[in-house]
Amino acid sequence: MSANPPRKTKLGRATLVGAGPGDPELLTFRAVRALGSADVVLYDALIDPAILDHARPGARRIDVGKRCGRHALSQVAINALILRFARAGAHVVRLKGGDPFVFGRGGEELDCLRAAGVPVEVVPGVTAACAAAASLQVPLTHRGVARSLHLITGHGADGHVPAHDWAALVRSGGTIAAYMASRTVEALVTELVAAGLPASTPAVAVENASRANERRWHGSLGTLGELIADARLDGPTIVLIGDTVGQAAAITRALDQAA
Amino acid sequence: MSANPPRKTKLGRATLVGAGPGDPELLTFRAVRALGSADVVLYDALIDPAILDHARPGARRIDVGKRCGRHALSQVAINALILRFARAGAHVVRLKGGDPFVFGRGGEELDCLRAAGVPVEVVPGVTAACAAAASLQVPLTHRGVARSLHLITGHGADGHVPAHDWAALVRSGGTIAAYMASRTVEALVTELVAAGLPASTPAVAVENASRANERRWHGSLGTLGELIADARLDGPTIVLIGDTVGQAAAITRALDQAA
Repeated sequence: MSANPPRKTKLGRATLVGAGPGDPELLTFRAVRALGSADVVLYDALIDPAILDHARPGARRIDVGKRCGRHALSQVAINALILRFARAGAHVVRLKGGDPFVFGRGGEELDCLRAAGVPVEVVPGVTAACAAAASLQVPLTHRGVARSLHLITGHGADGHVPAHDWAALVRSGGTIAAYMASRTVEALVTELVAAGLPASTPAVAVENASRANERRWHGSLGTLGELIADARLDGPTIVLIGDTVGQAAAITRALDQAA
Repeated sequence: MSANPPRKTKLGRATLVGAGPGDPELLTFRAVRALGSADVVLYDALIDPAILDHARPGARRIDVGKRCGRHALSQVAINALILRFARAGAHVVRLKGGDPFVFGRGGEELDCLRAAGVPVEVVPGVTAACAAAASLQVPLTHRGVARSLHLITGHGADGHVPAHDWAALVRSGGTIAAYMASRTVEALVTELVAAGLPASTPAVAVENASRANERRWHGSLGTLGELIADARLDGPTIVLIGDTVGQAAAITRALDQAA
């Protein structure tokens, strides 16, 4: 007879939670409720401490922070961690920037958990395009201007801009929102212009949308590369492109003058 | 000398607030804070009473509910109402389903308020595509499957499906999310198949995503029309189309069996 008989552990569960774009005030009630019942929180880089403060006191907090090009933990390692804690009976909250299913690799975590039979819940979040648009006061769709919105990733698996079908993107005629574009703004702009989008098309880059350290560069496809050349973009950066964006510069100036 | 000299009224302000997809738990703190300081709340149809409960006691609540094809108030009339209250010194919260700038006509309200010099703030919300994806547990982007997400409106100004560039949409190869599609699912599906998307492409229609009365129809482009033929879609309906959606039916079955 073993001195340490294996404990029968109840299988835990996991919740993939969208923390929104950064501002702790853009957290949802459901996200807060998930955090409040977490035993373990695995969180992305750049999650505000005020968001983590909603975690149950005593919950274990683990930074699995991945930043563009600087992987703290690989996706495989993160998946394994979630699984390990869930199998030990914990409620694991995987706290992710933005929405878990918009360029968040939540699908990979979901696949892994489901294959292991771990119950999963998913809490959606405010995605960066919406946060940037609200902050800039630029509609993403607008009657007579843009009746579609195209979210693309600016950052492929190899760190370069992915091989999107640029001509198709240009033809669809809607607003384009390029996520994770901090290192690929120039390549992105070059591809779109080569595919036929006029260099005069309004474009704006927003770093750290909704956070206190938000920065913006208003320009056009033709000028954006130069505008951000010395910006040393370090935070998550989204680029909005299209005619609805044209209003942004004037609006920002008006708001600045009123302040 | 007039018996009723005009009062000098301080100009009010307006906040365009995204209430999210319907579930009151998917409201953000910022939305709640805006509601808590509102003098007047102009709200869309289908806003849950539990969401309105966050309005300041004594705030005037006005249903400007527009539903697909049944305009309670025209956009022009809504704009005029917001302006009237703001000019009378009120803090007007314009409470909108989803996100104000994703097919929400928030841009038109913004233009009107800005032209009148009324200070505006915009609070982003969880948009329906993210809510539906979370509920279905279907990633909208997925490594190796879909690296872009295309939000289109299924409902044009004339009530028909708009003249999107369907061929370009198909070529871009990402997930498609068609908003406000309750009356145009069949037309939408026909256009996409005609433009070259295989009829076997997975598709799911979700009515009232995130609400207690959420309904779903899992199928493919080729079967979706028939599946919803007798459904009498009445609530906001979003259709997700693409290979990432293919997992949804199997997942739902698994969840149903586990329940």
